[in-house]
Amino acid sequence: MKPYKHLVQYYETDKMGITHHSNYIRWMEEARLDFLRQLGFDYVEFEKMGFMSPVISLNNVKYKKPTTVGEIIDITVSIKAYNTVLLTFHYEMFRDGVLVCEGDSEHCFISKEGHMIRLGENRFQDVHHKILELLKKI
Amino acid sequence: MKPYKHLVQYYETDKMGITHHSNYIRWMEEARLDFLRQLGFDYVEFEKMGFMSPVISLNNVKYKKPTTVGEIIDITVSIKAYNTVLLTFHYEMFRDGVLVCEGDSEHCFISKEGHMIRLGENRFQDVHHKILELLKKI
Amino acid sequence: MKPYKHLVQYYETDKMGITHHSNYIRWMEEARLDFLRQLGFDYVEFEKMGFMSPVISLNNVKYKKPTTVGEIIDITVSIKAYNTVLLTFHYEMFRDGVLVCEGDSEHCFISKEGHMIRLGENRFQDVHHKILELLKKI
Amino acid sequence: MKPYKHLVQYYETDKMGITHHSNYIRWMEEARLDFLRQLGFDYVEFEKMGFMSPVISLNNVKYKKPTTVGEIIDITVSIKAYNTVLLTFHYEMFRDGVLVCEGDSEHCFISKEGHMIRLGENRFQDVHHKILELLKKI
Repeated sequence: MKPYKHLVQYYETDKMGITHHSNYIRWMEEARLDFLRQLGFDYVEFEKMGFMSPVISLNNVKYKKPTTVGEIIDITVSIKAYNTVLLTFHYEMFRDGVLVCEGDSEHCFISKEGHMIRLGENRFQDVHHKILELLKKI
Repeated sequence: MKPYKHLVQYYETDKMGITHHSNYIRWMEEARLDFLRQLGFDYVEFEKMGFMSPVISLNNVKYKKPTTVGEIIDITVSIKAYNTVLLTFHYEMFRDGVLVCEGDSEHCFISKEGHMIRLGENRFQDVHHKILELLKKI
Repeated sequence: MKPYKHLVQYYETDKMGITHHSNYIRWMEEARLDFLRQLGFDYVEFEKMGFMSPVISLNNVKYKKPTTVGEIIDITVSIKAYNTVLLTFHYEMFRDGVLVCEGDSEHCFISKEGHMIRLGENRFQDVHHKILELLKKI
Repeated sequence: MKPYKHLVQYYETDKMGITHHSNYIRWMEEARLDFLRQLGFDYVEFEKMGFMSPVISLNNVKYKKPTTVGEIIDITVSIKAYNTVLLTFHYEMFRDGVLVCEGDSEHCFISKEGHMIRLGENRFQDVHHKILELLKKI
């Protein structure tokens, strides 16, 4: 899997002259959707089919080094835990090879009507098996 | 109509130490929804009924003075033009009585299916007449 | 201490029709600055004096219920841990008395030159003692 | 000059399922800094030298078509007016060759102390002449 690249924008900085901490949470989302795309899972299509995958928790988000406008952040995404109902991603963000931020986000899968979905079921078999393969490699 | 009050937030500042200019566009929206609420028109309810009112243009947005975190911005909203299909709002933003920003936003009204709506029609008569009254006072 | 009130804005919603999860991190900041203000500590003045208090970690951020535009969120802030160098806040967010989100943010204190500051020292004695008093009540 | 590419992010959408209009103002900034970089003018370095170029007005911002997450927006930037003190950029945003948004932003140049700068002066000659050359081609 190729790391996702984010170029820090001017509007992402704050009065301290550095990236506002809330933006890293948005970059996690950027990188996660890119990771899923690389895995062959188009999240936008998934929503068109009537499903959603909200974030249900954020954990261990550690801000190691400040970053600022014009810097390129390489974000690697991995799967930390998965049980067909809950999926936890781990993110590591680097600037020139130095870790600047890391963290986890936990997700569930629901239908528009609010019912929980198991990714193991029926039409999500493809992504389910890809996730299992990724987990085997750890 | 009471001016809308916005307390500038830390995350709204940028590297220059002042409010990032894109946020004033968001404050226009905050003030506009508040203005409509004061007029007896709940925009969120309007959307629940299957309608939307997207911004179709921004004009004459003038940044007069910088603002920053902790400052209270008083925003007055008025109706600049209205023809039942298009509605133009004018905004003036003040800090301690000094104009810091002004601008206009133009809106149309559409159904979820993408059809144009005239506010003069049927169930929007109430807000239509309130807008006409406001325009008479100018 | 009075809970901080945030009115959810339209621009804070996303394609799911609910508040985007990154905004809760921003609301924590809104509520934290308000909490400190109530405690007699003006964070903006603190920065003017040449100091900063960046977020160094986020933990246990749990998204319990979705929220959306027009809803009022009451946010209570408390101090979870403090050792003069690190300060951890705990946030609970309610809509009509129902917990919708909670989480922790951890902060340090540094000078513009990047030196760590102890709040126990010299001119921060006031806020230091107020924090100790708050901790005693737990 | 190469058009700037922006991939629409999930967090940039709103409750209507489309990109929130305030984000186009941010994309103008992304594209403008990229345009200046291509011109050999690094805005971040410019600020390090003690100067700033705030937006002083937005005009003729026209939202032609909605866009949404996963779409790639090609943004072309051109210089509409320039008199060494004021610089107006024009932006055109395309999705698959179709114009989705256009607009203008006007900028001045100031020192940190708040003094107006003429780009025609001394050390900004390089960018000044490049802008003049671009204007000749129109």
